[in-house]
Amino acid sequence: MNWADGRVELVDQRQLPNRVKILKLKDHKGVAAAIKEMAVRGAPAIGVASAYGIVLGAKNLKDEKHLDEKFASIVEELSRTRPTAVNLFWAIARMKEIFEKHRHEGLRKLQQALLAEAHRIKQEGLEADKRLSRNGAKLIKEGDAILTHCNTGALATAEYGTALGIIKAAWQQGKRIKVLVAETRPLLQGLRLTAWELAQEGIPFEIIVDNAAGSLMQRGEVSRVIVGADRIAANGDVANKIGTYSLAVLAHHHKIPFYVAAPTSTIDPSLKDGSGISIEEREPKEVTHIQGIKLAPRGAKARNPAFDITPRFLITAIITERGIFRPARAIGKLA
Amino acid sequence: MNWADGRVELVDQRQLPNRVKILKLKDHKGVAAAIKEMAVRGAPAIGVASAYGIVLGAKNLKDEKHLDEKFASIVEELSRTRPTAVNLFWAIARMKEIFEKHRHEGLRKLQQALLAEAHRIKQEGLEADKRLSRNGAKLIKEGDAILTHCNTGALATAEYGTALGIIKAAWQQGKRIKVLVAETRPLLQGLRLTAWELAQEGIPFEIIVDNAAGSLMQRGEVSRVIVGADRIAANGDVANKIGTYSLAVLAHHHKIPFYVAAPTSTIDPSLKDGSGISIEEREPKEVTHIQGIKLAPRGAKARNPAFDITPRFLITAIITERGIFRPARAIGKLA
Repeated sequence: MNWADGRVELVDQRQLPNRVKILKLKDHKGVAAAIKEMAVRGAPAIGVASAYGIVLGAKNLKDEKHLDEKFASIVEELSRTRPTAVNLFWAIARMKEIFEKHRHEGLRKLQQALLAEAHRIKQEGLEADKRLSRNGAKLIKEGDAILTHCNTGALATAEYGTALGIIKAAWQQGKRIKVLVAETRPLLQGLRLTAWELAQEGIPFEIIVDNAAGSLMQRGEVSRVIVGADRIAANGDVANKIGTYSLAVLAHHHKIPFYVAAPTSTIDPSLKDGSGISIEEREPKEVTHIQGIKLAPRGAKARNPAFDITPRFLITAIITERGIFRPARAIGKLA
Repeated sequence: MNWADGRVELVDQRQLPNRVKILKLKDHKGVAAAIKEMAVRGAPAIGVASAYGIVLGAKNLKDEKHLDEKFASIVEELSRTRPTAVNLFWAIARMKEIFEKHRHEGLRKLQQALLAEAHRIKQEGLEADKRLSRNGAKLIKEGDAILTHCNTGALATAEYGTALGIIKAAWQQGKRIKVLVAETRPLLQGLRLTAWELAQEGIPFEIIVDNAAGSLMQRGEVSRVIVGADRIAANGDVANKIGTYSLAVLAHHHKIPFYVAAPTSTIDPSLKDGSGISIEEREPKEVTHIQGIKLAPRGAKARNPAFDITPRFLITAIITERGIFRPARAIGKLA
């Protein structure tokens, strides 16, 4: 994701890997739509995108008339896109602070301050990813077969990655590893995006249907599981892509380490535990249709919860840029 | 599946639910291809299909020259289609017995005897399904939300169903139930076939991605799980569609009853336990492509085990036409 010529440029992740199309967004409504429709996705990435969305919204203001109301409406529109990942709200809160601080300095200065903050959010995210990836890489052993879910790489973050960042860092350290990519229905972020990123890095991988994870664990073919997070409660419970909870139960049953990797911006200190996390329910069509083709019978109903909650007791450790928290409840120190 | 005008007629399940296309097969090679390419699938159904395949093979013989060799070659071709479901080998063994018994009575009589046996296999299968469905329906309670996997209905069997037969029987008894249909990647037999059969019966259902099963169990939205079987070892271990094992572990973790429904023809008394069951590994393309559309990046590798093994200790009971075996190891009485 880049800021260029007063626009936000990002790869349309819905079209990957078959087509690499760059969206050039020029207003905050475009950014909101891109987040909502998942052209850009991944908790840290939508945090950065929402910050740039606010920059665009402010940039397009002609004057300071009704500034507070207009800014509130921009923020409101970006807040209403997706409910689960806290990074979105965290980034928006940072942008609101900047607004409060600079709102009386004139539109030009305010716009500059907002842009600087969005750049900082992105840069800090990138640095956090790199640090947490180095931290996590210590847990990876030569010869590991690492199962990961959804996409937590450059596409999903501020351009390095969390769970996938750890995998990349371990690979760059020369550890011979293999990645098992859970395809991650309904939107196939594993099959489409993680596989694409791993192929570009030259890291060996095999795609599996989500269904096959348990059987491979049973056969001893999975050394550890690493996933990202959309929101972490103060007690260490984790909201992440639907299917994460199943993998955590399966890893627990097979005594396989289960790691969550996330920057500390993913922690929501306001939530005592995972029960307070709002779970987005998306359109049934994402389940009943694949790439626009209807596969279910006419009129079939489908449930489509986009996330699930993994209780802390199933998590071996949470890996952040500020260290490894083992057991997961130790994250409470930061909350 | 019907025998009509000297042909085997069956619905091409690869095209459901968008198109109901009837295949009319006139030789054993056509039947073998239909089994291998999964135009017909489901352990009991491929047993019946292979029996009719042998009938077609024998019917197309012009004379009794090299009868043994020719019959052996027909049997061989049908045996090599799919390795996991034992019903295929069980039905073929029955047809071979008929061949041995009638091979000296002239081609015409042999052909008639083989056809009569194939009809018997189908009819016995249908009766077994109905009995096991009545047995299993006793375990279903008013208001149950029943999670099922893959397709175990009329399409998969001798026209009534096993796990789905139980659901139908309970519904016909007036129990208000709801079915949660796991879509069953890679070939989506749940999303495409089970949903289609349930819609025709008017039984309320919701499709979920396989990924969502654990989360729904965690939320208390699943009362019990019922699946079919492709092969049951003498100790009660069960081979079934990939993903079954994950569901069994998840059900165990949440203390939700996990039932396997199968006719006794699915028991393989020659196998001490599940470790001896051959697991079919199918083409990676079934994972990387959906409905012919490539979704994974170029050159991506995929694993595609079609089945997994659920150890008996995760199975609450095995439901057959000869009664309910609880715990699963009690099936040993029949083996």
